[in-house]
Amino acid sequence: MATVTGVPCASRVPSVCQRVPPLLTDLYQFTMAYAYWRAGRHEQHAVFELFFRDNPFDGGFSLFAGLSDCLQFLRDFRFTDDDVEYLCTVLPSDTHPDFFTYLKGLDSSGVSVSAVAEGSVVFARVPLLEVSGPLAVVQLLETSLLCLVNYASLVCTNAARFRLAAGPKLRLMEMGLRRAQGPDGGLTASRYTYIGGFDLTSNALAGHLFGIPVAGTIAHSYVTSFSSLEEVCPKTLLPCPGGDPVEFVPLVKDWLGRVCQLLGTKPQQVREGELAAFLSYAIAYPRNFLPVIDSYSVQSSGLLCFCAVALALCQLQYQPLGVRLDSGDICRQSLEVANVFGQCSEHFSVPAFKSLIVVGTNGMSEKSLAELKEKDNEIDVVGVGTHLVACTSQPSLGCVYKLVEVGGRPRMKLSEDPDKSTLPGRKAIYRLLGTDGHPQMDLICLSEEPAPKEGEPLNYHSLGTDKDVRSITPGHVTRLRLEVFSHGEITHPLSSAYESRAYAQTSIQSLSAHHKKLDRPESYTVAVSERIHSLVSDIRRGNS
Amino acid sequence: MATVTGVPCASRVPSVCQRVPPLLTDLYQFTMAYAYWRAGRHEQHAVFELFFRDNPFDGGFSLFAGLSDCLQFLRDFRFTDDDVEYLCTVLPSDTHPDFFTYLKGLDSSGVSVSAVAEGSVVFARVPLLEVSGPLAVVQLLETSLLCLVNYASLVCTNAARFRLAAGPKLRLMEMGLRRAQGPDGGLTASRYTYIGGFDLTSNALAGHLFGIPVAGTIAHSYVTSFSSLEEVCPKTLLPCPGGDPVEFVPLVKDWLGRVCQLLGTKPQQVREGELAAFLSYAIAYPRNFLPVIDSYSVQSSGLLCFCAVALALCQLQYQPLGVRLDSGDICRQSLEVANVFGQCSEHFSVPAFKSLIVVGTNGMSEKSLAELKEKDNEIDVVGVGTHLVACTSQPSLGCVYKLVEVGGRPRMKLSEDPDKSTLPGRKAIYRLLGTDGHPQMDLICLSEEPAPKEGEPLNYHSLGTDKDVRSITPGHVTRLRLEVFSHGEITHPLSSAYESRAYAQTSIQSLSAHHKKLDRPESYTVAVSERIHSLVSDIRRGNS
Repeated sequence: MATVTGVPCASRVPSVCQRVPPLLTDLYQFTMAYAYWRAGRHEQHAVFELFFRDNPFDGGFSLFAGLSDCLQFLRDFRFTDDDVEYLCTVLPSDTHPDFFTYLKGLDSSGVSVSAVAEGSVVFARVPLLEVSGPLAVVQLLETSLLCLVNYASLVCTNAARFRLAAGPKLRLMEMGLRRAQGPDGGLTASRYTYIGGFDLTSNALAGHLFGIPVAGTIAHSYVTSFSSLEEVCPKTLLPCPGGDPVEFVPLVKDWLGRVCQLLGTKPQQVREGELAAFLSYAIAYPRNFLPVIDSYSVQSSGLLCFCAVALALCQLQYQPLGVRLDSGDICRQSLEVANVFGQCSEHFSVPAFKSLIVVGTNGMSEKSLAELKEKDNEIDVVGVGTHLVACTSQPSLGCVYKLVEVGGRPRMKLSEDPDKSTLPGRKAIYRLLGTDGHPQMDLICLSEEPAPKEGEPLNYHSLGTDKDVRSITPGHVTRLRLEVFSHGEITHPLSSAYESRAYAQTSIQSLSAHHKKLDRPESYTVAVSERIHSLVSDIRRGNS
Repeated sequence: MATVTGVPCASRVPSVCQRVPPLLTDLYQFTMAYAYWRAGRHEQHAVFELFFRDNPFDGGFSLFAGLSDCLQFLRDFRFTDDDVEYLCTVLPSDTHPDFFTYLKGLDSSGVSVSAVAEGSVVFARVPLLEVSGPLAVVQLLETSLLCLVNYASLVCTNAARFRLAAGPKLRLMEMGLRRAQGPDGGLTASRYTYIGGFDLTSNALAGHLFGIPVAGTIAHSYVTSFSSLEEVCPKTLLPCPGGDPVEFVPLVKDWLGRVCQLLGTKPQQVREGELAAFLSYAIAYPRNFLPVIDSYSVQSSGLLCFCAVALALCQLQYQPLGVRLDSGDICRQSLEVANVFGQCSEHFSVPAFKSLIVVGTNGMSEKSLAELKEKDNEIDVVGVGTHLVACTSQPSLGCVYKLVEVGGRPRMKLSEDPDKSTLPGRKAIYRLLGTDGHPQMDLICLSEEPAPKEGEPLNYHSLGTDKDVRSITPGHVTRLRLEVFSHGEITHPLSSAYESRAYAQTSIQSLSAHHKKLDRPESYTVAVSERIHSLVSDIRRGNS
């Protein structure tokens, strides 16, 4: 597609905002922090875990994303005087003044984080982030971390599903900025849909900040802004190899006559404004000619204008790029368009017409991408906006952040809903692979337990309906989380969007087909060790 | 509810970001701007309109929001050198270097905007913003303006529907930051759900920036962080009227025994950690006691702990606030809770227990709020997160930005989908009210047409299926849009969130009941004048 930057560079800043302010959190984090502080418990060592309870989109897997944003937020975590002055006005009037002094001095120097790599395939109920440090500080981080992980992971997973639905060959372009939740939502969408498997974005700032290839040519407003060939200016074009300027308007009019004759259509149905718009754009960007051709009518105007201008460009030895279809049945139209390209190529002996592409952009969804694989069509690039960035079929992910240990003691929430219960204690997470190399199970153990060993059977309890103890012999074992933040510093290099995208694609490829099916996938096993199972039973009985 | 700021102040900045960068737009805006520039058309006077094609949520109306953000974006519209250097690397290599100099000099000094007031009730197909100025500049503004209006209006409308579903009395609190599309999405949600009719937010930064009342006390993590009464520190509390510190732990234990006896429950089922957490919070904030009571079990622990601590607070002449329910059937639980409060109030002669409130926060949607009106319950405040901010039933609004005039000539897009056609020409929009004061119709006229007059019949054509000319005699006529931006300056004072909220509520109240019904509302008439109708016919025939 047109106008693509070639070389991805490392990411530069996490969002439109250089810094996510720590005041962007729920007020109750401060009332809790105060109560911890008042009880002298604020420095107690605490461990929180971040996870979601169900894979989004009724899917079998998710991608984890948002880590870089979290780490940059953590590194910069510090309240300004202005923040603290505001808090003075909204916290209860009996808040001790020393607490505000304490807030002013807070930073993340006592915080450690271990996390799954950005772009990893992950599953429901597996703790993706472990955040440990002083109780009051790690409590205060909750909402901001959730906010940074939830949408990033959701939209990244959505993009991965669109990619699986479309198959590996179709080029996918994200163009949802205008439909996102404001500037930052749009930027997040562009970044993480690229990581999820998209190729391009329309979002110029995302291109700049994250090194994502950008694309785009013209919209309907450009086409409808023209009404007459008199508006074309300049009217000449230099041939690609050089030489004297050529009068381009009569050349195109001549080609229009020949095209209409070939196709048996009437040139008087052609919209003069549309022809003028295409002519004018081709003169401005003769190497970047890819107009939207449905501003009036594809068959009786847009396609004819395109062919006339594109044939004139070919005559001057430029390579036109193709067309964009933005309304109606784009599969059917793409076939008609390709047929006309074929006729022109053959009749006028213009081989360049064989490599013209068709871009389709009309309310595409995961479902319509899947249908595209089934239907006859000649679409090469699909642009997706609304359904991709708004994640229409499930517009939010329910990541939660739960306390699992404080002062060295495991903690657990039971709740009125059994699904809302948590798993107590500090953990290590292992991914067990089968001898075929596919992931078979994620096993959640207490951190002090020995790691599972390849070829050695171990007992586990699945999370979910099956409560019985079972046994598995892993073919291969990997540790799922890495330490990424310690003593206020990022301890693992941040990945560029390009690197995370490559990692995500490898991670998805490693999944077996029945786990990555989009519709009714086989459920992937997430299990706990026998020791966690007993600890949960103890706490349920009130013994801990 | 707890911890509420009383006095709303004017809005301070539009978003997390002090400035929405103009590079946050689709790349094709630049390729089009270049082609206009290359053709010498960039200074031509052009007019764009922003509107949506369908009311969201299958509703009968929408609220317009995002205007302040748009105006601040416009005022600050200017590319940095860094922006332009990036564009040099991604625009086609044959872009003339002078174009980049032109971009560096661009600002909004030639731009004018007229708009509907922030918080107005609006309807599909009515142009909400008219943006006019040099063709290339007003083209470049498209994506950013859409991005700023789409989600703001969507979530504001969603909040208004939640408010209508809940009725006027229930207090509504927004708590969706963690489920929004990143930091900016969360902040936008907090601001515009307040304007749409919510009372409170959990989002501290939104409170700070926009003067929205904030609230919140404690989460489950606070409760589960405690395991024993030994962790309570300090253990004494000063009585509210003053005097000597009282040993609070034995006082609460004593009350727990009396409550258990009254209710016939066993104190040994009470979770010691939960009691310790409530005690500790009450000692920290005796005037702000509103715990979440479902961390283990409402009936056998949370409610008993609450009553014990609250009765002890009452004894020391503090007023406890109430409880929060966050799982299970909160309607049923609220009745049980209120029953227990009543028993305690009567048995222990504690009138303060009659004014305790119940806050419910468990995945509330528009539907569950409507059900709340039907079901017996004792809920006073509802907190809403996911379904409010993610707008689950329709997670994006389809605002578009269409060219309607250039160089004084009306422009129109026809498209392969008739619904995607636009209305040509520069317009004036009138709202016609009936003699009962309710809005009857929005009438779109050409700007040069005389305004409709009260009591004088006029002809119109409805937009939609009915194509016949009809006649109406308006009881009252108001002009819907005001000039808000001219010569690079904001010409109309920006409204604070508080003012916009008041305006929105008045605007909704003015609607007749059949238009504001949430389910299958009567369709509100949006119509065009006879002159627009003829102009459309002319252009369809290719005469313009």
